[in-house]
Amino acid sequence: MSLIVQKYGGTSVGTVERIEAVAEKVVGFRAAGHQVVVVVSAMSGETNRLIDLARAIHDAPDSREMDVLISTGEQVTIALLAIALQKWGCEARSYTGSQVRILTDSAHSKARIEEIDTDRMRADLDAGRVVVVAGFQGVDASGNITTLGRGGSDTTAVALAAALKADECQIYTDVDGVYTTDPRVEPRARRLDRITFEEMLEMASQGSKVLQIRSVEFAGKYKVPLRVLHSFQEGPGTLITLEDDDNMEKPVVSGIAFNRDEAKVTIQGIPDHPGVAYQILGPISEANIEVDVIVQNFAEDGSASLSFTVHRNDLKKAGEVLATVAAQLGAKSTTTDDRIAKLAIVGVGMRSHAGVAAKMFKALADENINIQMISTSEIKVTVVIEEKYLELAVRSLHAAFELEEMDRVE
Amino acid sequence: MSLIVQKYGGTSVGTVERIEAVAEKVVGFRAAGHQVVVVVSAMSGETNRLIDLARAIHDAPDSREMDVLISTGEQVTIALLAIALQKWGCEARSYTGSQVRILTDSAHSKARIEEIDTDRMRADLDAGRVVVVAGFQGVDASGNITTLGRGGSDTTAVALAAALKADECQIYTDVDGVYTTDPRVEPRARRLDRITFEEMLEMASQGSKVLQIRSVEFAGKYKVPLRVLHSFQEGPGTLITLEDDDNMEKPVVSGIAFNRDEAKVTIQGIPDHPGVAYQILGPISEANIEVDVIVQNFAEDGSASLSFTVHRNDLKKAGEVLATVAAQLGAKSTTTDDRIAKLAIVGVGMRSHAGVAAKMFKALADENINIQMISTSEIKVTVVIEEKYLELAVRSLHAAFELEEMDRVE
Repeated sequence: MSLIVQKYGGTSVGTVERIEAVAEKVVGFRAAGHQVVVVVSAMSGETNRLIDLARAIHDAPDSREMDVLISTGEQVTIALLAIALQKWGCEARSYTGSQVRILTDSAHSKARIEEIDTDRMRADLDAGRVVVVAGFQGVDASGNITTLGRGGSDTTAVALAAALKADECQIYTDVDGVYTTDPRVEPRARRLDRITFEEMLEMASQGSKVLQIRSVEFAGKYKVPLRVLHSFQEGPGTLITLEDDDNMEKPVVSGIAFNRDEAKVTIQGIPDHPGVAYQILGPISEANIEVDVIVQNFAEDGSASLSFTVHRNDLKKAGEVLATVAAQLGAKSTTTDDRIAKLAIVGVGMRSHAGVAAKMFKALADENINIQMISTSEIKVTVVIEEKYLELAVRSLHAAFELEEMDRVE
Repeated sequence: MSLIVQKYGGTSVGTVERIEAVAEKVVGFRAAGHQVVVVVSAMSGETNRLIDLARAIHDAPDSREMDVLISTGEQVTIALLAIALQKWGCEARSYTGSQVRILTDSAHSKARIEEIDTDRMRADLDAGRVVVVAGFQGVDASGNITTLGRGGSDTTAVALAAALKADECQIYTDVDGVYTTDPRVEPRARRLDRITFEEMLEMASQGSKVLQIRSVEFAGKYKVPLRVLHSFQEGPGTLITLEDDDNMEKPVVSGIAFNRDEAKVTIQGIPDHPGVAYQILGPISEANIEVDVIVQNFAEDGSASLSFTVHRNDLKKAGEVLATVAAQLGAKSTTTDDRIAKLAIVGVGMRSHAGVAAKMFKALADENINIQMISTSEIKVTVVIEEKYLELAVRSLHAAFELEEMDRVE
């Protein structure tokens, strides 16, 4: 018998029928002898409906009251799921974040979990009950309702699994696992049986949005085995775990992540002396623009050029800030480009393998794809290329690193 | 400066626009220097929507989970009203029943309030904030969410007013006060400026459903001045208070209540000996049928006949039970009649005035209306008549007791 924490998102509980299907699934786990804690989100659409009601009254509603409002979404789901479980003859009891209690700080709409009381859940589990917990919400020390921010139900599930020392935390989604890359771009993309927390973080931050980054960080920190599964299809999903050092056949590259959300900004002909990068990026940061890849180069005349990427939504604002800075620095020119894509190969295996970056660059060169920017970390090599080459680049790298062929050892 | 507890029902907060109108009203009371605690119901239709979701899953959903589910209705309203108040620049803070906390017993769906903690509300009021409280809900000693049953928001308001020793508890509804009788039957019906708790209880139990009976009992018990007002029309409403002994001009009859929900059952030719009434009404009670007016008479042959009224929905069942009983007792016959109406004159003044009943019977006799049953209490005379005479009876009694002319002293 093992203790499993399961999380079902808004789409998985989007209708009464789906809630009943989730109940049936949970009953199956109980029948197999497992203890189960289920974390659920609001029924899909419900959170937006509630936000719209508040926005109809006030442009910038108070965050304490917004938390009171939208926390009702999950509260509805826990009650309905408990009722559905009882219909299956399965004893169940629901808890809001406050009832559990999931103690958080007082940062409404983006609260952080500080402590979880497991006594009531333990008592219910020992009595043979399924425990149903509202995701995404908690309570502060003064008894105010808080929310963890959107998508926070994953974090609730991982935090409960950590507090209960669960054997596994299962996140049910609309995909059947984590893939080597996006199957819509590379049909030969393969579901990974396993991936490490670090790899998952790099994949997620690159746009493979299967799991909330924060929940993966949390799972890694507390060593909670995390599994991504499809809500309504059978299958083993993908297990996200600590690195398995015994695995000799660990591949060099686990997957390819990419996104098209970014744009590139370049400032050329700037003086090459200390502090210039700060003079440029300081005002960008002050304008609340987040910067991702940053590259600095030198021209033949001794002047420097600096390029960085920002979210496309911030491009206009970044261009304006940069124009002011360029005038102050006497820079030669500034250019912006929103037709770029970012692409990365990710894998813990590359730590011990030289030549991974070289192999990547060769594969892209073979397709005549020009690399505009390069950035590397221990388990990732990121490049920025012209957007129109993205699909070609993904497929050629997928082939070059033999991702579709690979049989990973479980 | 006085402390006022106000309650707005589902229709009064049925849309975002109405919630904003309620906020404007509350802001007016704050501007006039009052401290205000507002109790709200779920937006109209919301509770039924939630019940329907649960019923789609389970015919007889667990009452603990139903309370978790439907308590979200009021929680949505408190947040929206707090946000609307803040839009008006009025500091406000919302509380669920659990947050207040309103401690109840554990009788889910029909919990009774045991204790109310006023510390948080007091602190907010002292800080100049409006306190917005979810009606209809509480929390038991184990932290389970409870509800007081439908319409329980009136009770919440009165209980808060009692706990806070408020100067007045105002119940906002879709009528502008308590009337001498139903204006749809007697257009000359007049709004009462005042009525006593006892009269209000008799009026309410007779079908003048302006207020929940339980909240009136509660207000009487704790001597909370209760005022019924219209949510969206100006006016003084009706104040429900303790009897005003100084009022020399107190009228004999305050109002006329009636209903058509009942049916009459008669059993004739039963033996006249002790225990017969119990032999008849015992099985009725065991069948969970509530009995209202009961009259026993004797025929010339020394046998007795017993008549009583039940809710029309229970008539068929009552008839079946009675047939069995009649056979056991060797009764002559049983009859049922669902074309009756019940009518009552109510007034604390009749305690000290003889002849009130006689005046009532004469007024009915003048219209050739036959009285089938009579029942009296200290402040009420009830008669059962043929349903088709109901409107005529109401109008003739309204005139006979000069209810339309009366100017009550405030």
